[in-house]
Amino acid sequence: MTTIQDIADKLGISKSTVSKALNNAPDISETLQKQILETAVEMGYTKLRRYKKPTKRLCILVQKDNIEYEKPHHFAYDIIMGFRQMAEPAGFEVETVPVDVLFQRETSYDVFMLRHDYAGSFLLGFSLGEPWMKEFQTSRTPAVLYDNHIIGNPSTAYVGIDNNEGMNLAVGHLKKLGHQKIGYLSSALGSHIMQVRHRAFFQAMHSHGLKAGPSYAGCSYYLSECMEKHLPRFLEMGMTALICCQDTFASAAITQCQQLGFQVPRDISIIGFDDIPMSSYTSPPLTTVRQDRIELGKSGFYALSSLMNGVSIGTVLLHAHLTVRESTAAL
Amino acid sequence: MTTIQDIADKLGISKSTVSKALNNAPDISETLQKQILETAVEMGYTKLRRYKKPTKRLCILVQKDNIEYEKPHHFAYDIIMGFRQMAEPAGFEVETVPVDVLFQRETSYDVFMLRHDYAGSFLLGFSLGEPWMKEFQTSRTPAVLYDNHIIGNPSTAYVGIDNNEGMNLAVGHLKKLGHQKIGYLSSALGSHIMQVRHRAFFQAMHSHGLKAGPSYAGCSYYLSECMEKHLPRFLEMGMTALICCQDTFASAAITQCQQLGFQVPRDISIIGFDDIPMSSYTSPPLTTVRQDRIELGKSGFYALSSLMNGVSIGTVLLHAHLTVRESTAAL
Repeated sequence: MTTIQDIADKLGISKSTVSKALNNAPDISETLQKQILETAVEMGYTKLRRYKKPTKRLCILVQKDNIEYEKPHHFAYDIIMGFRQMAEPAGFEVETVPVDVLFQRETSYDVFMLRHDYAGSFLLGFSLGEPWMKEFQTSRTPAVLYDNHIIGNPSTAYVGIDNNEGMNLAVGHLKKLGHQKIGYLSSALGSHIMQVRHRAFFQAMHSHGLKAGPSYAGCSYYLSECMEKHLPRFLEMGMTALICCQDTFASAAITQCQQLGFQVPRDISIIGFDDIPMSSYTSPPLTTVRQDRIELGKSGFYALSSLMNGVSIGTVLLHAHLTVRESTAAL
Repeated sequence: MTTIQDIADKLGISKSTVSKALNNAPDISETLQKQILETAVEMGYTKLRRYKKPTKRLCILVQKDNIEYEKPHHFAYDIIMGFRQMAEPAGFEVETVPVDVLFQRETSYDVFMLRHDYAGSFLLGFSLGEPWMKEFQTSRTPAVLYDNHIIGNPSTAYVGIDNNEGMNLAVGHLKKLGHQKIGYLSSALGSHIMQVRHRAFFQAMHSHGLKAGPSYAGCSYYLSECMEKHLPRFLEMGMTALICCQDTFASAAITQCQQLGFQVPRDISIIGFDDIPMSSYTSPPLTTVRQDRIELGKSGFYALSSLMNGVSIGTVLLHAHLTVRESTAAL
């Protein structure tokens, strides 16, 4: 096991300087501290096994450009609350830290965790191309990722809802109402979860015996492009129902259909994904695949505490539920 | 909520007779008790919410024709031990109950659970066609299934290892050793897990950029057919490595290759799945994808206690690990 002496020897500096860097002492330059921490991580040094009492500090890392979390009506607010509801009674101190791409480029994940003495993290809102996503292939500090799946690193776990089940419930509900021609409207496939739902749509259509060629899905980075390009195309194709990758898309689609002279659900049924708080207040209120966000947060803590205790959980998926409101109706 | 009176009214019998049936009183005929329990289940009666103190009895249901569990060298032994290690300190009484197809045909799952006052179950070794598997689509008593995935019933959960990850590790290991032509030997696809591994093999080959057409897999119900039909075919095709669906197949394949004049790993590398206790004692010792059985049992209890507490966990997958021994070598 790497010791402080090993790090000092490698860098040709004193043990006390290494110790200062690891303990955030004020009398050490930032550049030197960074170099020492990076070397420590590289050499496999970890505080976790060093003291008898392991640190009880955890952090929730939120990619603030991708996911909102500060107010009760924000999507990630309840996820964070669920996590805290489990972590705090178990004696952990939890800090929520917003990060962006620039921050990830400047500091490596393991160095950040070591520097701030965090035993593990819960990550929300990371998309596939971000700097830390590559690091998670080999990182050693326990990390639980909401809606992201890292294959092959026993220090990471994936928590989310079962999107295959959710898509099955959505397609099954529409089929029961007599719909056969169902389209799928999605944002670009730049995140793990958008890829999973996209695949799940075709699988669910197939397993319900419904036709769905490539033209049955419309994916665009811009919401406006989805509404102005794919949606009119779907209506021309004679689609009678629409599943959207998330509620904001579904909400926009309702408005857009109405502007094109189609009534929801009389002329077209629409289903969203997530059940964000606003979904009860669209007009008509939205039928959607629900993610229980409090439970997601609780499961996030469970997975993280398993990883910290050496139980190598890789994936925890919650059952999906369909919340039926008024945006779907019999054909 | 259904009461004892409701059940008595429905059957036109006295409340006390219903109560006798629900409490396993000795002075009631077996036929009448069965009828009362079936009616109770049909009407949605559950003891769980009836008393202030819910039952602390759990059962592990083992399909004894498919999986061995009684001795330390049996596959399911450690899974059961892991489950008990978590459940018993939490105050639960755990009973292990062997069942077969006949038993499942005679008694419905919910009736069995109600009759014996079990709050939940952990199921090992069930294959897809068995009578209870259909019931699990709609059953209401919490059930966690090892290696079986029921879609859409919030009272069930699936626990296993991540077989996609495991197959990826196996193919990646062989590719690193220089192997390109890799075959997959499997028993018949009559269980969920055999289907998952079969699919995972082709996905892993694809994602590693290796060719794998339908002829690259050989599946037979009989081990002998795999050894006498598929294995010689693979050798003729010039395969230099072989992944087997489970260790017993891999162990047989080592022997069969030797009988056909091929040395393992000099002429052909072989990888198994599961890491059963005997895998260290094949000759040469077997490289295999490890399932940590103690952790599987612990995760089974975690999923079950989540379901019993109304947290709707659907899937828990453990990280797969590759145990490298001597049955694989560089090309």
